[in-house]
Amino acid sequence: MSGEPMLWSGWGDPALARELPEQVRALLRDFLGVRAPDAPAVGLESVRLPPVALSEPLLGALAGVVGPAYVLTSHEARVRHTRGKSTPDLLRMRAGDGSAAPDAVVLPGSHEEVAELLRVCSAERVAVIPFGGGTSVVGGLTAATPDSGFTGVVALDLGRLDRLLSVDPESLVASFEPGVRAPEAERLLAAHGLTLGHFPQSFEYATLGGFAAARSSGQASAGYGRFDDMVVGLTVATPTGTLDLGRAPKSAAGPDLRQLVLGSEGAFGVITSLRLRVRRAPEERRYEGWRFGTFAEGTAAVRALAQEGPLPTVLRLSDETETMIGLAKPDTIGSGGSGCLLIAGYESTRASGWGSVAARQAGAAAVLSRMGGEPLGAEPGEAWEHGRFSAPYLRDSLLAAGATVETLETAGFWANLPRLYDAVRLALAGALGSPLVMCHVSHVYETGASLYFTVVVAQEGDPVAQWERAKEAANAAIVTAGGTITHHHGVGREHRDAYAAEVGPVGVSILQAVKARLDPAGILNPGALVPPTA
Amino acid sequence: MSGEPMLWSGWGDPALARELPEQVRALLRDFLGVRAPDAPAVGLESVRLPPVALSEPLLGALAGVVGPAYVLTSHEARVRHTRGKSTPDLLRMRAGDGSAAPDAVVLPGSHEEVAELLRVCSAERVAVIPFGGGTSVVGGLTAATPDSGFTGVVALDLGRLDRLLSVDPESLVASFEPGVRAPEAERLLAAHGLTLGHFPQSFEYATLGGFAAARSSGQASAGYGRFDDMVVGLTVATPTGTLDLGRAPKSAAGPDLRQLVLGSEGAFGVITSLRLRVRRAPEERRYEGWRFGTFAEGTAAVRALAQEGPLPTVLRLSDETETMIGLAKPDTIGSGGSGCLLIAGYESTRASGWGSVAARQAGAAAVLSRMGGEPLGAEPGEAWEHGRFSAPYLRDSLLAAGATVETLETAGFWANLPRLYDAVRLALAGALGSPLVMCHVSHVYETGASLYFTVVVAQEGDPVAQWERAKEAANAAIVTAGGTITHHHGVGREHRDAYAAEVGPVGVSILQAVKARLDPAGILNPGALVPPTA
Repeated sequence: MSGEPMLWSGWGDPALARELPEQVRALLRDFLGVRAPDAPAVGLESVRLPPVALSEPLLGALAGVVGPAYVLTSHEARVRHTRGKSTPDLLRMRAGDGSAAPDAVVLPGSHEEVAELLRVCSAERVAVIPFGGGTSVVGGLTAATPDSGFTGVVALDLGRLDRLLSVDPESLVASFEPGVRAPEAERLLAAHGLTLGHFPQSFEYATLGGFAAARSSGQASAGYGRFDDMVVGLTVATPTGTLDLGRAPKSAAGPDLRQLVLGSEGAFGVITSLRLRVRRAPEERRYEGWRFGTFAEGTAAVRALAQEGPLPTVLRLSDETETMIGLAKPDTIGSGGSGCLLIAGYESTRASGWGSVAARQAGAAAVLSRMGGEPLGAEPGEAWEHGRFSAPYLRDSLLAAGATVETLETAGFWANLPRLYDAVRLALAGALGSPLVMCHVSHVYETGASLYFTVVVAQEGDPVAQWERAKEAANAAIVTAGGTITHHHGVGREHRDAYAAEVGPVGVSILQAVKARLDPAGILNPGALVPPTA
Repeated sequence: MSGEPMLWSGWGDPALARELPEQVRALLRDFLGVRAPDAPAVGLESVRLPPVALSEPLLGALAGVVGPAYVLTSHEARVRHTRGKSTPDLLRMRAGDGSAAPDAVVLPGSHEEVAELLRVCSAERVAVIPFGGGTSVVGGLTAATPDSGFTGVVALDLGRLDRLLSVDPESLVASFEPGVRAPEAERLLAAHGLTLGHFPQSFEYATLGGFAAARSSGQASAGYGRFDDMVVGLTVATPTGTLDLGRAPKSAAGPDLRQLVLGSEGAFGVITSLRLRVRRAPEERRYEGWRFGTFAEGTAAVRALAQEGPLPTVLRLSDETETMIGLAKPDTIGSGGSGCLLIAGYESTRASGWGSVAARQAGAAAVLSRMGGEPLGAEPGEAWEHGRFSAPYLRDSLLAAGATVETLETAGFWANLPRLYDAVRLALAGALGSPLVMCHVSHVYETGASLYFTVVVAQEGDPVAQWERAKEAANAAIVTAGGTITHHHGVGREHRDAYAAEVGPVGVSILQAVKARLDPAGILNPGALVPPTA
């Protein structure tokens, strides 16, 4: 298995935990009214777990498939596979609430073992939660409750399926097992001079299978595309047999069934291999900052880039609040007040001419200048690049300091973005009083873009219930304002009802029909994605 | 309704029928052994149709939904909705075989009327064949046979749903009804300075709904994308309710159900409106030719363009045979023998700088020269542009002259293309003796491309059976060689079995489950796309 396990009660490598700077503490105190003393997480050994519900014969049957060494029921293994990394998940874990723990963790070593596990678990009504990097922020990994009619719940950890299977340098296709973590995938590809170019916030721990199952999109999506753009083929083990899809980049052979697996979040089957479009690794990278007077002006500028080109590799526009909060040194933002910061990054395999960093940067600069942008040079871009994966560490420190911080996101067509932006902010303010709400546009398309919100608020007595109220209000606002309930976090359990509203009853009935056909016992990630049949 | 009806026994406007040049007649005679005298099509009035199977009360019920003026049972209306435009379709129609005619043609005027028709036809077990431009070349429109258990068959002609509903110039999204023909869509969009950029061979008659239902891809797909790339939203009437999909360009909200409707060929529902990504109309267009010594060298060059850029708007590489046959003036192909002709077209909204025709043409020229290409200047490109929609007319003349001509296509990953190319040619030679087989690459992706074959052979006594043998052999070769059974023609009935092999039994079971859920009576385009449940 690749990499070290992540901090069970928070994010990442415990050695990289961040002290909150005094200026942040002052902000929390003076602007958000955070008064609570620091509340450290309980120790791992103090997490309260339910007893293992699976019988010894059943555990033996699972061990018969994967070998006894790969069926784990230890306290630590169960804690480490309890929930994902949403803020409610972390708040519960920090408080020692391990009620959603699986009974066992099972680690298959091959497609055939996955298929056999699904057969055994279907026959015995054992719920199966496919588990990649464990980074879901939408309740995608929450085990079913004991009263759900299952004999037990296993986390199906794909960490042993961690190989690069093949590289086709002519077609620029690499075949991977699903449990490969993103940094390891990049390391393996770098040996061939290749890259995926997929760098979501969860990059350091998330797996390729998880990216596909949840339709991930990374910080360089403008240049490298979404993860679903990268998937050209999939092998999927389902309780009723194996799906093997993808004979060509594109096809007119019926509905694209790959697109039914992408985003299926382990509810239809378990991805056991992926064929991914890769790119030649860039030889040059450059990041820069631009300033716009208002979020509306900046949005018009990123829209112009998306519709006219050239599209940078990385493109991120912060609203006024995010710009103000995010700036360690507000004087770097230029002459006219804080305004809005745009980060543009360019990567290229060419040193000069068409497609080079210089040519694209110059082309984009012409558009950004025309749209009222003021160039800020390389420093803001490099600062962003330096800190691009640090936000989840900051969240842990804020949670400990008595502030709730969480993110949520949506996407819509350009003409609808202002309505979506206002609706979400209003809903959060209505539910939380005076939260700090920051937003950025970070994934753009010709016809629209995503909006990514970060919310900070002083914790109330029951911070989970407090956040759930806010989340419900935001979900309702997104549905009403016509956006999609998620641009790249996925559906899981937190977005399931809003997702049902989004695709409507006929859409839901399609999902239920596919689920019933592929997983007739309903063991796969029950409760996630697909609303239960009424 | 937009546009004139098409020649019932062939393609297009009868006034544009082409006389075969003597050099083509000589080729047919001397190289293919075509000996048959010209065989004209029977007159429309001589086409033999089965009696109308639908009862008067049932026809009355349909008229109750759409009005009596829009339920047609005339000889001419039925003939004009019999079959599509594949060569076997035309051979049968020319011989007066109208056995696959629908009993009636029904023309709904709204989404609500479509939905109500589906309810009535489900209750009465009337098969419904959604009918757009009638240009299917894969048996997508063949009515069910009388012994299939249906009380009758109607063609659901969407020609009255022919409006541009709205234009969102900020999001670059236009909303259309499905029956708009492509030239009319371009005309409507041109008034807003916009274009779809979708120019398949069927452009002059095909409809937007048909493009979506069959996952069309046009001659400018390198620049404007496939039609499925253009669809950002869909409304679909199904027998069990309405689907309304597409709140954002992209989403992580579960499987992309739009991709389940795209390519569903009327078997799951009837598309009643489409939201399409449009582009600003280009101000400059330039087409040019390049010569490569061999198809392999040319393929490597188009692969380099697809993987490194810049991608022209139009890109088409003919193999040696197609190059030789296609050249009216063989001396235009340059110095080193015939070789292979590459057509590159560039369109842009910019007069200069990044993204302009000049910049992209120069960037592509650098790649093509490096890969061994020899520039031929504008003339071959302009000749291609001039004749880009004329091939179907030529086919009619060849059919009349005793030659069968038909096309078929596939797609695969770059490393697999040579195997696919050889396999299809061998299969056709095995089935047909010494056919003339031409091929081009005309849709490219980073990871692969399509292969488009044109086959010409002297007609035997039963030319339909002769072609069906060849088609079966080609289908089997594509499946065995690992390609997709169709890149842009669709599945229909001719590719259904190969499609089933391509997606496997689990894939087929998904299609059957969706079909059973949305169309429980099985009335929608029965026999197309979805293999019947065993």
